[in-house]
Amino acid sequence: MKTEIPEPISYCVGELRLIDQTKLPGELSYISATDYRDVVCAIQTLAVRGAPAIGIAGAYAAVLAAHEALTLPERERAGFLTLALNEIARARPTAVNLGWAIGRIRARLGDIMSVTAETVGMCESEAERIADEDRRMCEQIGLHGSELISQDSAALTICNTGALATGGIGTALGAIYTAHRQGKRPKVFACETRPLLQGSRLTVWELERGGVDVTLIVDSVAGALMRQRKIDLVITGADRIAANGDTANKIGTYSLAVLASTHRIPFYVAAPSSTFDPDTPELFEELIEQRPADEVRAGFGKPTAPPDCAVYSPAFDITPRQLITGYITEEGIQSGGRAD
Amino acid sequence: MKTEIPEPISYCVGELRLIDQTKLPGELSYISATDYRDVVCAIQTLAVRGAPAIGIAGAYAAVLAAHEALTLPERERAGFLTLALNEIARARPTAVNLGWAIGRIRARLGDIMSVTAETVGMCESEAERIADEDRRMCEQIGLHGSELISQDSAALTICNTGALATGGIGTALGAIYTAHRQGKRPKVFACETRPLLQGSRLTVWELERGGVDVTLIVDSVAGALMRQRKIDLVITGADRIAANGDTANKIGTYSLAVLASTHRIPFYVAAPSSTFDPDTPELFEELIEQRPADEVRAGFGKPTAPPDCAVYSPAFDITPRQLITGYITEEGIQSGGRAD
Repeated sequence: MKTEIPEPISYCVGELRLIDQTKLPGELSYISATDYRDVVCAIQTLAVRGAPAIGIAGAYAAVLAAHEALTLPERERAGFLTLALNEIARARPTAVNLGWAIGRIRARLGDIMSVTAETVGMCESEAERIADEDRRMCEQIGLHGSELISQDSAALTICNTGALATGGIGTALGAIYTAHRQGKRPKVFACETRPLLQGSRLTVWELERGGVDVTLIVDSVAGALMRQRKIDLVITGADRIAANGDTANKIGTYSLAVLASTHRIPFYVAAPSSTFDPDTPELFEELIEQRPADEVRAGFGKPTAPPDCAVYSPAFDITPRQLITGYITEEGIQSGGRAD
Repeated sequence: MKTEIPEPISYCVGELRLIDQTKLPGELSYISATDYRDVVCAIQTLAVRGAPAIGIAGAYAAVLAAHEALTLPERERAGFLTLALNEIARARPTAVNLGWAIGRIRARLGDIMSVTAETVGMCESEAERIADEDRRMCEQIGLHGSELISQDSAALTICNTGALATGGIGTALGAIYTAHRQGKRPKVFACETRPLLQGSRLTVWELERGGVDVTLIVDSVAGALMRQRKIDLVITGADRIAANGDTANKIGTYSLAVLASTHRIPFYVAAPSSTFDPDTPELFEELIEQRPADEVRAGFGKPTAPPDCAVYSPAFDITPRQLITGYITEEGIQSGGRAD
C-alpha cells in the first residue's frame, strides 16, 4: 500500500532522489544525489528527517560511496569506503536509525579488505532490505492502528509521523492512511507543532495529498477541541519508549496525553518495536536536548521576541505509561497504563 | 506605581502618543496622533490593543475630535462630533471597552447641541478619569494578586495582560510587577501565545524592561514544566467572565487550566470586576470568533502550511469555574470552583 504522495526517497542505479523537506509546503522539489556527500548534507540540513527515513537515506548513501570506491585505484577503495561509512554514520549523531543502518551495511560487508562490483551489490541489497522492512513495518502498524479508528472518527496528532518520516506510509499517520483506504473517512486535526512546525509544514501537506480530511490547529487549541467532544482519539509517534513504558516524543505530547485523559479520550502511541528501549529503565526530563533559542525567538525568519531573551525549548517531553491507552507496533497493540 | 517600560499611551494638549505595538519587539516607535482618524487607524491595525488600552485610546480620540470640531463653523460642530464619536466607537466592534468609553464621553456631554471650549474640556477630563480609573484598578489588582505570589515563585502566564494592554501596570502582569516591587523576585514563564504571539512579542518585552526574570516558551511546553514542578502558579487575564464563573480568555487558557488542575498548581484569573458579565449566564464555544486562517498558515510573512488548507483557529476558549482557584479583581480575591 502506498499513499498518493510522491515517493520521498527513491533509488535507481547510482542515484538517490529525496524530497527536499525544507522547501515544503511551498515547493515540491527533489535533491538528486549521486555523491554520498550530498546525502550527508541533506541529512544535516534536515532536507530528509524522521528517524526511519534518515536510516534509509544513510544506507543508500553507503551504496553511492561503494559506487565511487569502484572508480578509484584498487588499493585505495577499502580505505575510502571505510572512511565514507564513518562520515555517513556521523551525519546526525542523535538519529539512532542512522548508526543502526550503517551498522547493518558494515555487518553485511564484514571486514572491508577490497571493494568489487559484488561489494556494491551487497550494499544495494542491504539498503533495499532496510527500506523494504521499514515499508512493511509501516503497513503492519497501519493495519493494527486502523482497528482503533471507527467510521468518521476524528483523530488528533502532533509532529510528522507519515510517509515523509519513514520508508512507508508512516507510524501514527500509517494508521490514518490505512483507515482512509478502508473507507472509514477519518478526520485529522494536526497540531502545527512549534517550534519547527512539522505538523503544518509536513503532516498537513502529506495528508492533503493522500486525500485525508485534515484541519490545522495551533497547538494550544487541542484542549478546546477535546472539551467540545470533537476528538475521538489521539495518536502520536514516539522517539523512545523506556522499559517502564514512559514515552519520549515531540514536545507537546505530554500535554495532549493529560488533556486526553481528563476528557476520557483514548491516547495511543504508534512506533516500531525497535523504539522500545529495554536498556533505559526510565526517562528524565533533565536529559532532554534543548532546541536553539532562535527557533522560538525568530522562528519564521522575522524576530518575534526580544533577541536575547531567555528561552526554555526542550525538543521532547515524557509521557508516563499511566496516560497511554495503548502502544501500536508492527506486532500488534499492547495495552498502556491508562485506568479507564 | 509605574513599571519601567515607556508609557504606552500618553496625552498632552491635542496630541495622543501611542507605542506602535505592531513594531514590537523589534522597534520601539510611537504613533503621534493629533487627528482622531489616526487613533481609529491605530486601533484597527492593532498598533494599540488590549481591551482597557483601547478604551483609553478611544476616549482620547474623542478629545482630538472635539478639538477638531472647534476649528469648524459653529453650525457644523455638533454634527461633526456626533459622527466622529460613532466612528471611534465602531473602530473595533468586539472591544467592549471602546463602546463603553465612548458611552461615558457621550453621557458626560449629554445631547451634543453645540461644541465649545467647555465641551473639549469635558471630553478631556472624562478621558483622564477613564485612564486614571484604569491605572488605579491595575494597582489594586496588582496588590491583591501579589498576595498570592511567594518569594521566588514561578508563575506561568499567557498572552499580554500588562502595561501594554491597560492604562496601568496590567492585570495578571500587574500582580507580577507588584510582587517584583515587593522584592519577591517572581520568575515568569511566558507562553508565546500562537497565533499572534502576544506573549513573545509583548509580554517578554515588557517584563524584561520592567526588570522581571522572564523565560519564553512555546505554548506546548507548559505541561512539561508543570510535570517538573517548575511552576508554582498560573495567572491569566480574562476577556469575559459569565454569571456562572466560566471564563473566556485567549485560546490555550483552558489547556493551561486543565494541566494546572492535574498538577495541583493554583490557577488564577486576574481581571477588573467589569469583566464579570451578569447578563451572560454561560459561555458557548460555538459562539467564539475565529481568527483568520492565514495567521496560522502564514503568520509571519512566510507560508508554513499549504496555502488553502483548512484551519480551526478560535480566538478564545472557555475555562469552567471548576478549574479556577480564584478571581483577582480590584475589589479583592474571590474563590473559584477548584476543589483542592
